[in-house]
Amino acid sequence: MNDELPARWRRAQALMAERDLAALLLTTEADLHYLAGFHTRFWQSPTRPWFLVLPATGAPVAVIPAIGAALMAQGPVRDIRTWDAPDYRDDGVSLLADALAEIAPGGRVGLPDGQGTHLRMPLAGWAALRDALPGHRFTGDGGLMARLRMVKSPAEIAAIAAACATGTRAFARLGEVLRPGLPLADAFRRFQVLCLEEGADWVAYLAGGAGRDGYADVISPAGPGPLAPGDVVMLDTGLVQAGYFCDFDRNVSLGPPAPAIAAAHARLIDATHAGFAAARPGATATDVHVAMDAVLTGGRGGGNVGRLGHGLGLELTEPPSLHPHDITELRPGMVLTLEPSLETVPGRMLVHEENIVIGEAGATWLTGPAPAEMAVL
Amino acid sequence: MNDELPARWRRAQALMAERDLAALLLTTEADLHYLAGFHTRFWQSPTRPWFLVLPATGAPVAVIPAIGAALMAQGPVRDIRTWDAPDYRDDGVSLLADALAEIAPGGRVGLPDGQGTHLRMPLAGWAALRDALPGHRFTGDGGLMARLRMVKSPAEIAAIAAACATGTRAFARLGEVLRPGLPLADAFRRFQVLCLEEGADWVAYLAGGAGRDGYADVISPAGPGPLAPGDVVMLDTGLVQAGYFCDFDRNVSLGPPAPAIAAAHARLIDATHAGFAAARPGATATDVHVAMDAVLTGGRGGGNVGRLGHGLGLELTEPPSLHPHDITELRPGMVLTLEPSLETVPGRMLVHEENIVIGEAGATWLTGPAPAEMAVL
Repeated sequence: MNDELPARWRRAQALMAERDLAALLLTTEADLHYLAGFHTRFWQSPTRPWFLVLPATGAPVAVIPAIGAALMAQGPVRDIRTWDAPDYRDDGVSLLADALAEIAPGGRVGLPDGQGTHLRMPLAGWAALRDALPGHRFTGDGGLMARLRMVKSPAEIAAIAAACATGTRAFARLGEVLRPGLPLADAFRRFQVLCLEEGADWVAYLAGGAGRDGYADVISPAGPGPLAPGDVVMLDTGLVQAGYFCDFDRNVSLGPPAPAIAAAHARLIDATHAGFAAARPGATATDVHVAMDAVLTGGRGGGNVGRLGHGLGLELTEPPSLHPHDITELRPGMVLTLEPSLETVPGRMLVHEENIVIGEAGATWLTGPAPAEMAVL
Repeated sequence: MNDELPARWRRAQALMAERDLAALLLTTEADLHYLAGFHTRFWQSPTRPWFLVLPATGAPVAVIPAIGAALMAQGPVRDIRTWDAPDYRDDGVSLLADALAEIAPGGRVGLPDGQGTHLRMPLAGWAALRDALPGHRFTGDGGLMARLRMVKSPAEIAAIAAACATGTRAFARLGEVLRPGLPLADAFRRFQVLCLEEGADWVAYLAGGAGRDGYADVISPAGPGPLAPGDVVMLDTGLVQAGYFCDFDRNVSLGPPAPAIAAAHARLIDATHAGFAAARPGATATDVHVAMDAVLTGGRGGGNVGRLGHGLGLELTEPPSLHPHDITELRPGMVLTLEPSLETVPGRMLVHEENIVIGEAGATWLTGPAPAEMAVL
């Protein structure tokens, strides 16, 4: 995918020009992957900061720990400046300040500062950087990176589709790893094995829950308790291939589900289809939310998940959110999850999730869609 | 481990008093796990910020998205304030500002700001928080959280030891998954399966490399190229159990290694033992570095990895660093990696890594130590 990076730089630079940004400063795994092709699991180590500076024109400059120079050089970035990190006196700050002084003398430097972003460097280093460049103005990027990354290229869509296909194959084998008496934690381990066997590079995310009436939340780690006959089991996976995520789930019932649970599942699938139909170019994220919520609650909204789906790609969750206040206009190339949830009894819920891609004529399924009737093991 | 959290609060508060901090503000996965027992893979989703405020006395206050309330309530934190995130108007900032105004009126609020830390919230939210609290002073925590987390409790050491034992069992089965002709990427997948089968909750980190003279770096993802007879293969795993990491590697040779490679491996093991012997209470991280570097280079130092080991625990890499400038005094309860590396030929290297824990009388191995003679498959 490195061949399309120069076009990404130019698109970013066109948006930078609108905001009068002389440089863009990036520090996170997804942003460095997106603009430098820098792909490694080493981000799991929090010790070292990593910097990429995109000038107003031309190629980015990498300011990174020496340990990453060989890998960075495999991508299209040629100007790679390194220091021996960790450095207890100056952990890359002066090197970065020099680069910014050279690339954007006295200019405005944009950084992602909106929802879902953070600055991946120590606050002390951030303060030292601004002290070193008193003539520079550091400002938000106006959502520039989010907007760019929201619309995926065909190669990116293919990568996400491959991750989705791997997850689909793993879910098709769910019967191999779920049975009454098995601790949920063991089911989680075994499902991750299926994902790897089917081609995942790694399983960055797995959540889920189990219970007769659904589950209390969708973010808890699996406990040691055994699965019971009649349990609904939900597994939600964010596996990664070539750096790109899928993010979808499946609910299965260990034995026939109670009628109310079966009906709740069917309604989640109805809501998914309503979201799919609404997810057309020109519609907004809000429109998709409204279409799904009409099925789920008759339009009353609510629920503690906070949204009914979201973007995905280099991160498990990306903008936009299918949320009443997200007015992002859907465009061809956006990849979304549709993720309706319902309370079944007080304190218990069911969640369903599929992945779709927006095309010129409407959405296409990347997963499923699962049938309305819940699978029974 | 939740029963020891109140003691952690009190230790943190004693250090806060030294720095005249009225509150500590924490935002990251490891810090919320450490002080609130909040353990979830949901951190993989970057959308939502999470906040924990530790007052000068008493229990912490959680200011978190509603989606996490049920899980947070399973821990010892009772004051849980939630908002429906994502919120496009105010994503938790006012709720957090209110909490800080109540808990620490006009006081000094400390945040981790040193090496290996970052603030996990949007920069725009961070600016809005300071604007909302003009009478408060936000300042660094003086390394307080790093110092606290560096010394592990017996329960934490047991958790790390369990992760190390799982990794040891997986490495003992390496012969099942490595053979000439297999793409390294497939070997990575298969080794992760072994880690899961042996009890890992998940495999947060796996890196490695292969080649006749070693590998170019230790952070690249596995390529599609096949392993060849005579290759040295290194796998370095950071698997997780109950939230705690191991971090160690093994080198194996596909067929007898070249004499120079065998000698380099033996020297890495010698350096590991030198580090082990030096890693005693009262010694510094620098002392351990010096002992290892004497074996590796005769005391000349160098190499692009930047250090010869580091702490580990709730994160793959934690302070201290075995580095010439890290004067941290070793204390019983610290868990460290010993991670010597050597250049074999220009641009190729070997790396070895073991995990140890510091006790009253010296270090104890949590892994290995591997024999000087490299394993041959």
